[in-house]
Amino acid sequence: MKRVVGLVAVLGLAAAMLACFSPAFSEAEDAAAAPIFGISIPEGYRDWRLISVAHEEGKLNDLRAILGNDTAIEAFRAGKESYPDGTIIARLAWDYEPLPESKAAFGQAQSYVAVHPKNGVQFMVKDSKKYAATGGWGFAHFNDGKPADAKIHETCFACHQAAASRDFVFTRYAP
Amino acid sequence: MKRVVGLVAVLGLAAAMLACFSPAFSEAEDAAAAPIFGISIPEGYRDWRLISVAHEEGKLNDLRAILGNDTAIEAFRAGKESYPDGTIIARLAWDYEPLPESKAAFGQAQSYVAVHPKNGVQFMVKDSKKYAATGGWGFAHFNDGKPADAKIHETCFACHQAAASRDFVFTRYAP
Repeated sequence: MKRVVGLVAVLGLAAAMLACFSPAFSEAEDAAAAPIFGISIPEGYRDWRLISVAHEEGKLNDLRAILGNDTAIEAFRAGKESYPDGTIIARLAWDYEPLPESKAAFGQAQSYVAVHPKNGVQFMVKDSKKYAATGGWGFAHFNDGKPADAKIHETCFACHQAAASRDFVFTRYAP
Repeated sequence: MKRVVGLVAVLGLAAAMLACFSPAFSEAEDAAAAPIFGISIPEGYRDWRLISVAHEEGKLNDLRAILGNDTAIEAFRAGKESYPDGTIIARLAWDYEPLPESKAAFGQAQSYVAVHPKNGVQFMVKDSKKYAATGGWGFAHFNDGKPADAKIHETCFACHQAAASRDFVFTRYAP
């Protein structure tokens, strides 16, 4: 009987340890999670609703869309100046080309349309406790589905400081 | 008994007439429906998923997003060359401005973001029987929620002829 109780206790302890350490361990070991913030690509993000669109000139030179999960969309539409925990914002971007059919219709190149993904996919995840040191936001950048290195991720929060007065979010909702 | 049967017959005929004529009548009378094609703004279209983004230069000069209902998204993702009945494609557009916070972060204006709606909202609705004369597509253009006039709607199909080989759809899916 003592042996059985002892075995149960050991198994219980092992289970408790797994429960405590597995998430952190699997994040650290998970090649799909971005460094520093431990964020993986959120499932189904390409199906999220549209927050806004933008065009980057300069070195980035892309057309982009900013999508949000339900929590994000709700906060953006309510015009909130800070975002609740659970908010996730996704930034997609593409290179662009003049559309031949539009050129034919208009008689000149004037419609530039998204073609291939460019400049990776980025996410901002709000968790005010977990990411307290970076304004409550975790940041993640993926190129072709693979997380960029730690050096890239060190630049995220520094750059987003420019939007500190709007909870570090550059994007505004496009009505 | 004869009277009851007669009444039922009259009511049945009235119901049949209503079923036949009401939709057309209400469309013709509905100030919210676009002329020629009788299309109203589809409910909840701003929540639809993203097909692609684009930038128009020239006179239009906007940033735009193309959204699709579920039927549209499914067809675009499957790479279909023609679209099934029930497909609805929405084209939204905005004027754009350099984002001050981005200028502060990058040291130069390079991020142009959507601001106010511009150039109206447009819809393409696939109904191969109803719109057989225009490639199976109905077209609608709304400015500030009000349908543009018939003259505008006469130009839609003529212009989309340039994309005849792709079922009259200019947009391609942005992966």
